[in-house]
Amino acid sequence: MFENKERTAIAELGEFGLIKHLTDHFKVKHKSSIKGIGDDAAVLNFENKEVLISTDLLLEGIHFDLAYVPLMHLGYKAIQVNLSDIYAMNGIATQVTVSIGISSKFPLEAVEEIYKGIQLACDKFNIDLIGGDTSSSKQGLVISVTSIGYAEKKEVVYRNGAQEGDLICVSGDLGGAYVGLQILEREKLIFMENPNIQPDLEGKDYIIERQLKPEGRRDIVDLLAQMDILPTAMIDVSDGLASEVLHICQQSEKGATLYEEKLPIDPMTYETARELGLDPTVCALNGGEDYELLFTIKQSDYEKLKHDVDISIIGHITDKNSGCKMISKSNVVHELKAQGWNAFKS
Amino acid sequence: MFENKERTAIAELGEFGLIKHLTDHFKVKHKSSIKGIGDDAAVLNFENKEVLISTDLLLEGIHFDLAYVPLMHLGYKAIQVNLSDIYAMNGIATQVTVSIGISSKFPLEAVEEIYKGIQLACDKFNIDLIGGDTSSSKQGLVISVTSIGYAEKKEVVYRNGAQEGDLICVSGDLGGAYVGLQILEREKLIFMENPNIQPDLEGKDYIIERQLKPEGRRDIVDLLAQMDILPTAMIDVSDGLASEVLHICQQSEKGATLYEEKLPIDPMTYETARELGLDPTVCALNGGEDYELLFTIKQSDYEKLKHDVDISIIGHITDKNSGCKMISKSNVVHELKAQGWNAFKS
Repeated sequence: MFENKERTAIAELGEFGLIKHLTDHFKVKHKSSIKGIGDDAAVLNFENKEVLISTDLLLEGIHFDLAYVPLMHLGYKAIQVNLSDIYAMNGIATQVTVSIGISSKFPLEAVEEIYKGIQLACDKFNIDLIGGDTSSSKQGLVISVTSIGYAEKKEVVYRNGAQEGDLICVSGDLGGAYVGLQILEREKLIFMENPNIQPDLEGKDYIIERQLKPEGRRDIVDLLAQMDILPTAMIDVSDGLASEVLHICQQSEKGATLYEEKLPIDPMTYETARELGLDPTVCALNGGEDYELLFTIKQSDYEKLKHDVDISIIGHITDKNSGCKMISKSNVVHELKAQGWNAFKS
Repeated sequence: MFENKERTAIAELGEFGLIKHLTDHFKVKHKSSIKGIGDDAAVLNFENKEVLISTDLLLEGIHFDLAYVPLMHLGYKAIQVNLSDIYAMNGIATQVTVSIGISSKFPLEAVEEIYKGIQLACDKFNIDLIGGDTSSSKQGLVISVTSIGYAEKKEVVYRNGAQEGDLICVSGDLGGAYVGLQILEREKLIFMENPNIQPDLEGKDYIIERQLKPEGRRDIVDLLAQMDILPTAMIDVSDGLASEVLHICQQSEKGATLYEEKLPIDPMTYETARELGLDPTVCALNGGEDYELLFTIKQSDYEKLKHDVDISIIGHITDKNSGCKMISKSNVVHELKAQGWNAFKS
């Protein structure tokens, strides 16, 4: 990937030199960031607000494939998927730590690409990089991100607050990231069979971007605040809609009914799924990696968001004994099952 | 390692089942832990105190070798080395998140061993496990720990506060973890040549334990508070004494003079180093992984700690232009150099 470019051996810089080189131009922006990189620990202060902390581990060959994921995109996505967890608590994300394990065969320029993506995500979402760790890795690329944010105590939204009759809402559209991944996998296979064939991604920009460059929905958190809506429960859609609905229902001790016809699926997702012989609804339910926000609201809040084109009302919360169901377009009742992405399948 | 024991495939539990299985019996103890595992993010509250956050990535083959590191010890050490960073800020460690990537070839019982060690460390140091991530790994074992703690604003001790004339102090003794590692490496080589020879660790308990089961020096943080001493600068000894003294001097813009005869080296470390043909002073200066606390205090605090057997005064801070030096036992002046452990060497 870097064959014709400059290559600088990471060992030349050493561990501290590398961290300094990669992070020196990251400026700390938040008042809550008292001390960032450069001491034993970062020092933060949130003035009696609730502090939100989430962490994710991304492993080469499990969570990403460097055959088709550009390193800059990988850095960007690593930050976004983590911030998404803070937004899912109705919080404001403010800081991240990033630890990277990288093969010594990678040149410095490769790590720089990852950090370009990290910086892009941090700049766009107003996030301070306040710590981390870099190390050689004997195996593949390893990225661990911890994101930190805050919220007023009464504004934190958990998974367990959904009440019977609440409306189930989801932002954006679903299934695109999964269908985008199938296209990338298809083109990888073609390329492996014949490296002279260029990948055919024509007209697939949106779903490829959904897969390679997802964005946490901070805008939805802002929008809900502007609308004066406090969701009763919220979760981000990382493992697929079905899995997330089941999480909310399990923790809230409730049931749910979804309507297939209400699921927001982008036309490109729909058509490409069909092309690939996939059911678009199954992609939306079980595809995962959409990083949209799934949340429940009181019926009395319906009027406030009913005209928002970026939020779909896809069902409602029922009592626990009714279970979790989806009514299909042909009016058949299906039981919802979590068949989402499992990091332990192989 | 688990050939004659029960083996349960991790895939049987799935990701959520695994997290629940491994963490269900961890009880949340701190008032600051509002919500631990089970939502998109953990929720904490530190009531206007400074929040301290540190993170470490541990990779098989770089940071540990499963040929001689028992999994329970590995879990224990992963927590301790991270807590050590919070203590180095003069803070109270309260929470950790743990992410683990593990080969699907490992049975559930192996992951349970790691978590036993994590729990032992958490129980002993009164730490809440509040989040994390588990995943299959295509490569080796990956452990990422983020530790969280707090301190009153005026009690946080940074690396940059050392003043000319301050005394340089270190807790415990140095070089033991490194010499212990050399013994383990030696026995591994012997074992690889002839698997019938049992490892000879006779009489090496202390230094083996220094390597396999280090402990963060929370007790020193408590002791300093009892003595009413606020260090002017502090760092933990993870990369070797020389490297840490240089960090303090660089960030404080000062120099330092150490005295070789004052370096605390345990007799077992000393004798074993000699046996192995190593210079015990070099082991203390550059060995690393001791996880002792190195700190500077005002001269006026000398009377308060001069009788404490667990703290050694090893030198003093000088002006920047004098540089960082060690006076040897034979009165030769050596310039201090960081030759500590480097995760990118090899």
